[in-house]
Amino acid sequence: MLPSPIGWTPDDAITILDQTLLPSEERHVVLQSVPAVVEAIQALRVRGAPLIGIAAAMGATLPARGGNVGQVLAACDALQQARPTAVNLAWALERMRRAGLSGSGDLHQRLIAEANAIWAEDRAMCDRIGDAGLRLVPDGAVIMTHCNAGALATGGIGTALAPVYRAVAAGRRVSVIADETRPLLQGSRLTAWELSRAGVPVTVIADGMAASRMRHGDVTAVLVGADRIARNGDVANKIGTYSLALAARAHGVPFYVAAPRSTYDPATADGSAIPIEIRREGELREAGGRLVTPGTVQVWNPAFDVTPAELVTGYITDAGLISSLPAATPARSLHERWPDRPTAS
Amino acid sequence: MLPSPIGWTPDDAITILDQTLLPSEERHVVLQSVPAVVEAIQALRVRGAPLIGIAAAMGATLPARGGNVGQVLAACDALQQARPTAVNLAWALERMRRAGLSGSGDLHQRLIAEANAIWAEDRAMCDRIGDAGLRLVPDGAVIMTHCNAGALATGGIGTALAPVYRAVAAGRRVSVIADETRPLLQGSRLTAWELSRAGVPVTVIADGMAASRMRHGDVTAVLVGADRIARNGDVANKIGTYSLALAARAHGVPFYVAAPRSTYDPATADGSAIPIEIRREGELREAGGRLVTPGTVQVWNPAFDVTPAELVTGYITDAGLISSLPAATPARSLHERWPDRPTAS
Repeated sequence: MLPSPIGWTPDDAITILDQTLLPSEERHVVLQSVPAVVEAIQALRVRGAPLIGIAAAMGATLPARGGNVGQVLAACDALQQARPTAVNLAWALERMRRAGLSGSGDLHQRLIAEANAIWAEDRAMCDRIGDAGLRLVPDGAVIMTHCNAGALATGGIGTALAPVYRAVAAGRRVSVIADETRPLLQGSRLTAWELSRAGVPVTVIADGMAASRMRHGDVTAVLVGADRIARNGDVANKIGTYSLALAARAHGVPFYVAAPRSTYDPATADGSAIPIEIRREGELREAGGRLVTPGTVQVWNPAFDVTPAELVTGYITDAGLISSLPAATPARSLHERWPDRPTAS
Repeated sequence: MLPSPIGWTPDDAITILDQTLLPSEERHVVLQSVPAVVEAIQALRVRGAPLIGIAAAMGATLPARGGNVGQVLAACDALQQARPTAVNLAWALERMRRAGLSGSGDLHQRLIAEANAIWAEDRAMCDRIGDAGLRLVPDGAVIMTHCNAGALATGGIGTALAPVYRAVAAGRRVSVIADETRPLLQGSRLTAWELSRAGVPVTVIADGMAASRMRHGDVTAVLVGADRIARNGDVANKIGTYSLALAARAHGVPFYVAAPRSTYDPATADGSAIPIEIRREGELREAGGRLVTPGTVQVWNPAFDVTPAELVTGYITDAGLISSLPAATPARSLHERWPDRPTAS
């Protein structure tokens, strides 16, 4: 049974599963205001690029009850500043702005309908990603993944984990190796938890063990999500993904990026143009709440890295599997083959 | 001022700095018996391949007061089982066995003299490693390292960190990037602590950030230690080293292994023959004492990995810098060029 990371309360506030408390506590928190949604996104109570988009869209409905479009637009601006790397956030809020500015009828209801549409589309996209990646997860497959790109990161069955859930539903025996994903341990805390909930065997390793495990020879493929995919196919994803891609290349293990259309950003030429969020030092200075790094020491804590397109075997999208591009003609051809998506104006 | 991780008490027991408590507490613990030394090695209160050898040699003196060589040999056997990967442990204990079985005079004093000789030789070897690696650490260098191969891992100024300390002593501005080194965080807890103590600027990163940092372009070289070097040059070292070596190769960053002669094991043909210690799951299930992985989930926790010789730019040894070997003739030629060392019979 997959957990549901987000929902509406009966009076149209937002309820989220506070992911910072997992796996030790399952606490649902109600968000009643835009600042509360911003805080929840920044503190990673809701996280995962697709889910951030949904949460922000739902957040944009909160000030709409009074019928003032200006307040909605201001809320969208505030929400968009919450985190810089995932493009889904900007994309979802652009849809909310348009829904606020156009259309007829009650503003609040219109925005709720649009947020629900974004959520429903995300759920359907997850399913299509699962279908597109199903053939990459044969019976007996061992899938390695990083961070959490599962049900907890989306409005549906996940992105990177969607093909795993589909394969399991099809009766295949599949197991997952989850990088713990320092510093915030989304792999051990979230991916292992949700897979375990769904009855999928999962083994947690430290991030530095992935290359060794690949040399063992039992890894069928690496499947990861994405926070933004640039026009040329470069992928911003959780820090450590790039290292995993290098190891996969060294061992001939296929490396796939699973993402819905809202993650693809043709306005960004390549990975070097993707803003990388630097998060607070404390995340790395502490482990499980205990100080492990002396205070006299510097810390570098980027939340994401960029994996160059040439290390990506293929993109598992809601429009099917896009295989890797010839190195010679990356930019145009990915753009041409990527599923159509609304571009932020 | 560098910390001293081991010493004798006035009545010839052993005193160690309990490295499991760093950086929050500096506690020295007295070890009075062989089982206490075994426990301290297994629990990583003393750790680092060279220091384990010294601690075991000192431990072998403890039952010698009665003059019974049989008890010393039994102690050596018990100590040798403490950890399987570092060859220095077996090497040091072989010297202690020989010292016990041959020579004249008081057994206890003879063994103390041999343990002190091993310690003094290690200190001198660290100095020579520092000299051999000095030219790899120019003014302005940024050295990346993994785990702890510094003063806390040896009887002297370290192995991988020895060239850094020498360069700093020579007036060069050097900074270090330390991988935190999950699961036990020897990088953040120990390397960052001892470098900070010595006034060397250090930045801690998560293991998964190393490849990204190399792409930034400011890493001069990677310097790591070793727990065992096989005849063909393959290197067993702390888990995560192999991943670092792959990233270094991808970015053209030189990758050096620093180790004294006791780490080289010509009896082991290549990395596949090195026994890799699998440690208890709890180390990975917990972070800073907090449970982060659900109990229903499996964990894989190898303490070491093997970096193939072809990824090693050079070996910084007590007999100078041995540059990488041509791929065609690895085994013999490393053996011929490696500093002479006693072989366990």
